[in-house]
Amino acid sequence: MSRTSYDRYLTVFSPEGRLYQVEYAFKAISGSGHTAISVRGKDTSVVIIQKKVADKLIDASTVTHLFSITPTIGCVMTGLIADARSQVARARVESTDFRFKYGYEITPDALARRLANLNQVYTQKAAMRPFGIAMILIGIDPELGPQVFKLDPAGYFVGFHASAAGQKQQEAMNHLEKKWKKLDNGRGTDDPIAAGQTLGRDEVIEIAIEAISTVHATDYKAGEIEIGITSSSELEDPKTRGKWRVMNEAEVEHHLLAYAEKD
Amino acid sequence: MSRTSYDRYLTVFSPEGRLYQVEYAFKAISGSGHTAISVRGKDTSVVIIQKKVADKLIDASTVTHLFSITPTIGCVMTGLIADARSQVARARVESTDFRFKYGYEITPDALARRLANLNQVYTQKAAMRPFGIAMILIGIDPELGPQVFKLDPAGYFVGFHASAAGQKQQEAMNHLEKKWKKLDNGRGTDDPIAAGQTLGRDEVIEIAIEAISTVHATDYKAGEIEIGITSSSELEDPKTRGKWRVMNEAEVEHHLLAYAEKD
Amino acid sequence: MSRTSYDRYLTVFSPEGRLYQVEYAFKAISGSGHTAISVRGKDTSVVIIQKKVADKLIDASTVTHLFSITPTIGCVMTGLIADARSQVARARVESTDFRFKYGYEITPDALARRLANLNQVYTQKAAMRPFGIAMILIGIDPELGPQVFKLDPAGYFVGFHASAAGQKQQEAMNHLEKKWKKLDNGRGTDDPIAAGQTLGRDEVIEIAIEAISTVHATDYKAGEIEIGITSSSELEDPKTRGKWRVMNEAEVEHHLLAYAEKD
Amino acid sequence: MSRTSYDRYLTVFSPEGRLYQVEYAFKAISGSGHTAISVRGKDTSVVIIQKKVADKLIDASTVTHLFSITPTIGCVMTGLIADARSQVARARVESTDFRFKYGYEITPDALARRLANLNQVYTQKAAMRPFGIAMILIGIDPELGPQVFKLDPAGYFVGFHASAAGQKQQEAMNHLEKKWKKLDNGRGTDDPIAAGQTLGRDEVIEIAIEAISTVHATDYKAGEIEIGITSSSELEDPKTRGKWRVMNEAEVEHHLLAYAEKD
Amino acid sequence: MSRTSYDRYLTVFSPEGRLYQVEYAFKAISGSGHTAISVRGKDTSVVIIQKKVADKLIDASTVTHLFSITPTIGCVMTGLIADARSQVARARVESTDFRFKYGYEITPDALARRLANLNQVYTQKAAMRPFGIAMILIGIDPELGPQVFKLDPAGYFVGFHASAAGQKQQEAMNHLEKKWKKLDNGRGTDDPIAAGQTLGRDEVIEIAIEAISTVHATDYKAGEIEIGITSSSELEDPKTRGKWRVMNEAEVEHHLLAYAEKD
Amino acid sequence: MSRTSYDRYLTVFSPEGRLYQVEYAFKAISGSGHTAISVRGKDTSVVIIQKKVADKLIDASTVTHLFSITPTIGCVMTGLIADARSQVARARVESTDFRFKYGYEITPDALARRLANLNQVYTQKAAMRPFGIAMILIGIDPELGPQVFKLDPAGYFVGFHASAAGQKQQEAMNHLEKKWKKLDNGRGTDDPIAAGQTLGRDEVIEIAIEAISTVHATDYKAGEIEIGITSSSELEDPKTRGKWRVMNEAEVEHHLLAYAEKD
Amino acid sequence: MSRTSYDRYLTVFSPEGRLYQVEYAFKAISGSGHTAISVRGKDTSVVIIQKKVADKLIDASTVTHLFSITPTIGCVMTGLIADARSQVARARVESTDFRFKYGYEITPDALARRLANLNQVYTQKAAMRPFGIAMILIGIDPELGPQVFKLDPAGYFVGFHASAAGQKQQEAMNHLEKKWKKLDNGRGTDDPIAAGQTLGRDEVIEIAIEAISTVHATDYKAGEIEIGITSSSELEDPKTRGKWRVMNEAEVEHHLLAYAEKD
Repeated sequence: MSRTSYDRYLTVFSPEGRLYQVEYAFKAISGSGHTAISVRGKDTSVVIIQKKVADKLIDASTVTHLFSITPTIGCVMTGLIADARSQVARARVESTDFRFKYGYEITPDALARRLANLNQVYTQKAAMRPFGIAMILIGIDPELGPQVFKLDPAGYFVGFHASAAGQKQQEAMNHLEKKWKKLDNGRGTDDPIAAGQTLGRDEVIEIAIEAISTVHATDYKAGEIEIGITSSSELEDPKTRGKWRVMNEAEVEHHLLAYAEKD
Repeated sequence: MSRTSYDRYLTVFSPEGRLYQVEYAFKAISGSGHTAISVRGKDTSVVIIQKKVADKLIDASTVTHLFSITPTIGCVMTGLIADARSQVARARVESTDFRFKYGYEITPDALARRLANLNQVYTQKAAMRPFGIAMILIGIDPELGPQVFKLDPAGYFVGFHASAAGQKQQEAMNHLEKKWKKLDNGRGTDDPIAAGQTLGRDEVIEIAIEAISTVHATDYKAGEIEIGITSSSELEDPKTRGKWRVMNEAEVEHHLLAYAEKD
Repeated sequence: MSRTSYDRYLTVFSPEGRLYQVEYAFKAISGSGHTAISVRGKDTSVVIIQKKVADKLIDASTVTHLFSITPTIGCVMTGLIADARSQVARARVESTDFRFKYGYEITPDALARRLANLNQVYTQKAAMRPFGIAMILIGIDPELGPQVFKLDPAGYFVGFHASAAGQKQQEAMNHLEKKWKKLDNGRGTDDPIAAGQTLGRDEVIEIAIEAISTVHATDYKAGEIEIGITSSSELEDPKTRGKWRVMNEAEVEHHLLAYAEKD
Repeated sequence: MSRTSYDRYLTVFSPEGRLYQVEYAFKAISGSGHTAISVRGKDTSVVIIQKKVADKLIDASTVTHLFSITPTIGCVMTGLIADARSQVARARVESTDFRFKYGYEITPDALARRLANLNQVYTQKAAMRPFGIAMILIGIDPELGPQVFKLDPAGYFVGFHASAAGQKQQEAMNHLEKKWKKLDNGRGTDDPIAAGQTLGRDEVIEIAIEAISTVHATDYKAGEIEIGITSSSELEDPKTRGKWRVMNEAEVEHHLLAYAEKD
Repeated sequence: MSRTSYDRYLTVFSPEGRLYQVEYAFKAISGSGHTAISVRGKDTSVVIIQKKVADKLIDASTVTHLFSITPTIGCVMTGLIADARSQVARARVESTDFRFKYGYEITPDALARRLANLNQVYTQKAAMRPFGIAMILIGIDPELGPQVFKLDPAGYFVGFHASAAGQKQQEAMNHLEKKWKKLDNGRGTDDPIAAGQTLGRDEVIEIAIEAISTVHATDYKAGEIEIGITSSSELEDPKTRGKWRVMNEAEVEHHLLAYAEKD
Repeated sequence: MSRTSYDRYLTVFSPEGRLYQVEYAFKAISGSGHTAISVRGKDTSVVIIQKKVADKLIDASTVTHLFSITPTIGCVMTGLIADARSQVARARVESTDFRFKYGYEITPDALARRLANLNQVYTQKAAMRPFGIAMILIGIDPELGPQVFKLDPAGYFVGFHASAAGQKQQEAMNHLEKKWKKLDNGRGTDDPIAAGQTLGRDEVIEIAIEAISTVHATDYKAGEIEIGITSSSELEDPKTRGKWRVMNEAEVEHHLLAYAEKD
Repeated sequence: MSRTSYDRYLTVFSPEGRLYQVEYAFKAISGSGHTAISVRGKDTSVVIIQKKVADKLIDASTVTHLFSITPTIGCVMTGLIADARSQVARARVESTDFRFKYGYEITPDALARRLANLNQVYTQKAAMRPFGIAMILIGIDPELGPQVFKLDPAGYFVGFHASAAGQKQQEAMNHLEKKWKKLDNGRGTDDPIAAGQTLGRDEVIEIAIEAISTVHATDYKAGEIEIGITSSSELEDPKTRGKWRVMNEAEVEHHLLAYAEKD
C-alpha cells in the first residue's frame, strides 16, 4: 500500500509505524527559508538568525524571529511564523502560570518539557494539525548555567551545546561539529565538549556569526541578522546580566566587525 | 501524489509542508478586484482604496472598505467583504476588552498581534475555514508615531512604511519601492527609509493617490476612491488630530486636485 | 482539478479562492421564480413583489413575501421561503434584543449589519449551509430618512436608491438605472441620484409598479402583487406615518390604476 | 456533474441551488399510499383520509392519521407515520408552551408557523434528516373563522380553502379546483372563493367525501375513511362546537349515505 | 443510481424517499429464527414464542424472549436479543417515570406510543442505528380491556386482535386471519372481529398454540415454547388476575395437552 | 453489493440485517489461542483455562485470565486481554455501585445483565468498537445456587450448566454435551440436566479438567492451567466457602493427579 | 478484501478480528532504534538502554530514556519519545492521585494496571491513536520484592524476571532465556526461575550489561548506556536503598569494567 493513504489522517499510524503529518510539519520548517543557529558557552547562550525583509518598505523593526518568553528566557523560531506566534503566546502563559503557582521563574528545561508535551498532544489528537515550527529556547539556569533547548513538531526536545534549525540545519550542524573538534586546542582539555564549556561571551557570539556566515556563504550586514543573547558574563552590562535581550543593530555591527577583522 | 488530495482538508499539511486552504484564501483576496494602499510618514498614516459602486443605484454612502476600530485606529479590508465585517467586529471586541482590562486604548501593534493569533487558529483547527481577507491597519502609536500593519489569512502580520494588498498588490509594492528610492533627494539623508520618515501629511496623501492612480492607470474622481487617515500633523484639524477618520468627498477632491496640478 | 471536488464542503475554499456553497445559494434565489423590487425617494421606501398563488384554492391571505420586523422596518424576501421565515424570526429577535438593551428601536442599517454577520458565519462554519435567500429591508432612519438595504447569502449588505432581487434581478436593475438617468429632467439638478432623492411618495410607488410591470411585461392586477411601504410623507395617514405596512388590495388597485392611466 | 453527488449530504446545495434531501422527503410522502383532503367553508373545516387496515386482525381503533393537538386544533398526517407521531408530539409541546406563556390557546396560523420553522431547521442542520411527512392542520381562528394550513418537509406552510396531500395530491387538487369553479352557481356571487366561504357544514363534509371518492374511484364504507372536523355551525352539537373531533363510524356512515343518495 | 449509495447513511432519504437502515433492521428481525404470536380475547391477551436452547448445556431458565415491564404489562421480543434487553430496560424506565409523575400505572397504548417515539428518533438522528427488534406488548387496559400492540424499528406501532412477528410473521398472520374468518360460527355474530372479542381465556391460549404449531408444523413440548399472559378472566387465579405472568412448564404442558386432545 | 461496504461502519446494518463489527469481535475471541471451560454442579461452579506463559522469563504469577469481581463472583476472560481488563474494571464498579445502592451484594445474573447492556450500547453507538472478549462469570446465587453465565461482544448473555469460550469453544461444547449424556448412569434420574445438578465439588473439577485436557489432547501440568472456583460444598474450607478463589498450584496439582489416576 | 481497508480506522475490527492501528504502533517501537533490557534478582531490578546522542553537540545530560515516576518507581521507554513523555506525565499524575487518596505510595503492579487501562481506551475510542511506546517499569514492592512490568500500546501488561523491548527485543529475549537456563548451576536449585531469584545486585547489573552488549555486539562505554536501578541490597547506599535512581557515569564505568574483566 502506498504512503498516500495514511498521510491525510492526523492521528493514524502508517503500517510502518510512521506519523506522516508530523513528518510533513518538518518540511514546513525546512521550507521556510531561514536558518537559526544557537551556541552556548561558559556563561552565555546566543541565538542568531537571518533577518529577511521581503519588501523594502516593510518596517524592519516589526520583523523578527526572536521572542522573549520570560525576562530570562528567549527563543528563535523557524517555520510557519504564524504558528510560531501562537506557540510563543502559549509559552508565555505557561511561564506565568508557573511563576504564579510556584513563586519563582520557570527554568529553561521545565519550560521546554511543558511545550513539548503540548506539541505531542497535537500529534495524537484528531482535529488539530501539529505546529509547523522548530523552537530553539535559550536561558540561564540558576544551577546549570546557560542552556539551549530545541523543540520540534513531534513534541521532542533535547539540550544542545550548539544547535541549528530550519533550511540549512544539516549544513550548520556539520559546521558546528567541525568547529567543536578544533575547539580544544590550547584550552587545557582535549574534550571538545569541556572545551566548549570554557567559551567566553564574545567567543560564543563569534562562533554563531561564523556559523551562519559560512553556511550561507554571505557576509551579513548588521540589519540582515538578529542576535538574541542571555549572558551572566561580566562583559554584559549589569542591568541585562542574566536577562534575555535582542542586540541592537550597533551591537550586532560591532560583533560583525570583530569577526570580519579576525577573519 | 497530486496536490488535490490535501487541499480540501483544512488542518492538514501536504507532503511538502504546505497548507493549501490558507493559500486559496490568498486567492480570494487577489481575486476581489480591489487594491488597497497604505503609506505612512512623519506624523501621518493613510489608507486608500477604490470605491467601486457596482450598480449605479447603490447608495454609495453605504459602500466602504474602510472601517474604524477604535477612535484612533482604522483599517482597510480587501477580499471577501462579508469576512471583513466579521473580522472588524472581532477587532472591536478585542479593543474594547483591552481598554476595559488595562484602562487605556490598545496600540496598533498589540491589536494586530491579537488578530493575527485569531487568524492562525483558523488555519490549525478543523471545522472553520480561514478568513478570505487581508487587513491593513493604521493608527498612531503614542510612542512610535504613525503605524501601518498588514495581516493576512495565515495569521501573519508585519509593519510597513508603505504597503498594498489585493488585486494589484505586486504592482503597487513595486511602484512604492521605486518611489522610495527617489525619496531621499534633497531631504538631508540618503537612507530612503529615514527620508520616508520625514514625509509630511500632504506628501503622504499625495504618494498614496499617486500609487493607486499609477497602478490602475486611472485618474480617479473624488467618488471613486476612499481615503482613511490618522494624523498628528498640525495641518490636521485639532478636533481630529490623532484620530482615525475617513475623508469626505470634498477633501478627497481637494487632494486629487493638488495631485493633478502637481502632475 | 474540476470544480466538483470543492463544492460539497461547506467551509472550504476552492483553489481559485471561491466558496461554492455560497454561489449555489445564489442560484436558489434566482431559481425561485419571484422578482422583488425596492425604490426609495424623499420620504418613502417601497418594496414590490409578485404574489403568485400556486393553487387556486390557496388562501391568498396567507401567501406573502413581505414581513414586518419592527413597527417601522419591513422586508421582502426572495429565495427559499422556509429559510426566509427563519431569517425573519431571527431578525425579530435581534431587533427586540436591541430595543431591550439600548431603549430605542434598531435602525435599518444596524439591523442589516447584524443579519449580515449572522449570514457570514454560515459561510465559514461547518455543519450549517448558508441561507438560500435575499432580503431587501426598508425603513425610515430617524436621521438619514428612507432606507433600502439588500442582504445576500454571503453575508454582504449594501444600501440602495432602488434595487431588485430574485429571478429577474438583472433586468430590473437595468430598467431602474435607465429610469434614473432620465429622472433629472426638470428637477433642478442634473445629478440623477440627487433627483431621486426628491421623489415623492406616489412617484416612488409608481416607479416600483412600472419596474415590475415592465420587467415581467405584465399588467398586474391588485391581487397579483404585494406592496410594502414606509413613508413619512404627509400623503400618508398620520397613524401609519413612519411605520411599515403592507398595502391592502384596494390601495394597490388605486396605484395600479393611477399608473395605468398615466401610461 | 451528476445529481448523485449532492443528495446524500443533508445540508448542502447542489450547483443548481437545490436541496435534494428535502425533495426526497417529498417522495416519502407521495409514496405513502394515502391521500388526505381538507375543505373549509363558512364555519367548518374538515379533513378526510383513507383508513387502510393492512392486516384484518389489526385493532382498527388504533389506526389513524388524525391527531388532536389542542382541544380546538387537529390535523391529518401523510407520509412516514412514525415521523408524524414525532411532529404531533412536538406540536403539542409547542401549543402547551404557548398557552402557558400567553394564557390563551395558540391559533392555527401561529402553530403552523412554529412547526414550519422547526422543519426548516432540519433542512439546514447536519446530523438530522428532514421529516418525511405532510401535515394538514385545521382549526377555527377566533377572528378569521375556520382555517386549513398545509406544512411540508421543507418548512413551508400556507393556508388553503381546500387542499390535499399524499399519493393523489395532484388529482385531488385538480378535482377540488374544478369543483370550486362550479361553486358560484346560485350563491349570489360569481367569485368562487367567496362562494366557497358560504359553504355550510354539511356541504363541506360532502365536498370532502366527493373528492376522496372521485380521486380514488371508490365508494368508501364508513370504516374505510376517517373524518376530522372543527365546526362552529349550529348543526354541531353545542358540546363540540368549535372543538376538534374525529367523527365516529355512525356519523361517517350518515354522511356517506347522504352523499350516495344525492349522487 | 444504485441503492447502495444511500444505505450506509443512517439518516438519509434515498431518491425514492426510503430509509434503508430501517429496512435492514427489519431483516435483522426476520432473520432471527423465532416467530412470536399474540392473541387477545374477551378478557385475556397471550403471547407465545418458541424457546430454542441452542446448546443442550444452556441453563434453560435463563433463556427467554418474554419480559415483564410493569406488573400488568409484558412483552415478547423478536430480533437481536441484545437490542431487546436495551429496549426493555428503557420501557421500564418510562413506566416508572410515568407512575412517578401521574400516580398510576402507564396504560399499554401510552407505553407503546412512548417507545415508538423513541424508536423514531433513532431513524432520524445520525450516530445511532435503529434497534433490530420487533416488540409485541400485551396488557389489560382498565377501560379497553386486553390489548396487543406491535412496535417496529421504524417507530411505528398499532394495536391488534392477533398478531405475529419474526421469521414466519407472514405465514402466522395468514393462519390467524383464516382462523378469524371461521370464528363467528355459532357465536351469535357474523362479524369475526366481534366474535374474536368473545373468546375466553382458554380459547385464546388454544388459538395461540394452534397458530405456532401450524406455522412451524411442529408439535411443541412444554419446554420448547414460552407463553406470557395477562387475563382478568375468572379462570385466572385471583392473585395473578390482571397481572402479567409467564406460565410455568406445567401450565404450558396442560394447555398443550388440551390442544392435542381437541385436535 | 459486497459485504465489504458495511463492515467498517460500527453502527450500520448490512442489507441482510447483520452487524459486521460485532461478528469480527467474535473472531478476535476465537483467534486468541485460549479455551475457557466452565462447569457447575450441586454446590460448585468452576472455570478452567490454559495458562500460557509466552516467554519463559515472564513472571508467571502476573499472567492470568481469571479475575475476581466481588468476593463471591469471579470470571474467566477470553479474547483481547486488554479489553478484558477494561470490562473487569467496569464490572467491579457496577458491583460496588449495586452494593452501595441496595445494601447487599449483586447476584451473578444481575451483574451479567448489567454488563450485557453495556456491551449492547457499544454495538449501537458510533465512535466505540465492541469489546473483543467473551466473559464467563461464576458465582453462587443465595437462592439459585451455583451459576455460570456467558457474555459475548453483542451484549448477549445466558446461563449454562457447562460452557466454553475461545479458540476451541465448539469442540469443548461437543465434549461437554457428550459427557452430560452419559451423566445419568446410576444417579437415580435419567434427565442429564438433573443429573448434572447432583455433581459434587470434586466431580465438577474433574469434568472441567477432563474437558480441557481432551479438547487440547494435552496432559496439563499444574503451572499450565488456572482454575477458579466458588463452592458452598462442605469439602471447601469454611473460610472460602461460598467465596470466589483461584486455586494455588498445589491444589491444581492435586486435582490433576486425581484425574490422572482415575484415568 | 485487502488489509488496507481497515487499518486507517482507529476503532474498527478487521474481518479477522484484528486491530491494525495497534499493530502499527508496535512497529513504531521496533523502528525506534533502541533496545531496552530489564533484569530483576533477589533484591534488585535494573533497566539498561543505549544512550545515543544523535548530534555530537547535543547536551548529553538532556538525553535519556529513563524516567522516575515516584521516588521508588522508575521506567525505561522505547518508541516515540514524545509519546513516552506524555505517558510518563500521566503516570506521575496517577501515582500522585493514588498517594493522595490512599495515603501510601502506589505499588508497581497497581501503577502498571492503571496505565494499561489508559492505553486500552485509546485502542477502543475514535479520535485518538494508541501511544507508540513500550514501557518497562521497575520498582520494589513492599511485599513481593523487586518487580519488572512491561506495558504495550494495546493496553497489555505482564510481569517479568527479565525482559526487553524495542528494536532487538526478540534477540534480547532469546539471549536472556539462554542465560537463565544456565543460571541454576551451583545455586542449590535446578529451577532457573528460582535460581534467578537468588541473583544479587551486582549479578543483576552484570546480566543486564552482558545482554545489551551481546545483542548489539558492542563494547559500550560509560556514556553510551544508561542504567536505572532500584535495589534493597546492602550493597546499595542506605540513602538510595529501595529508591529508584539513575547511575552516574562513574558507576556505569565501574560496572562495565567489572563485566569486561570477568569476560
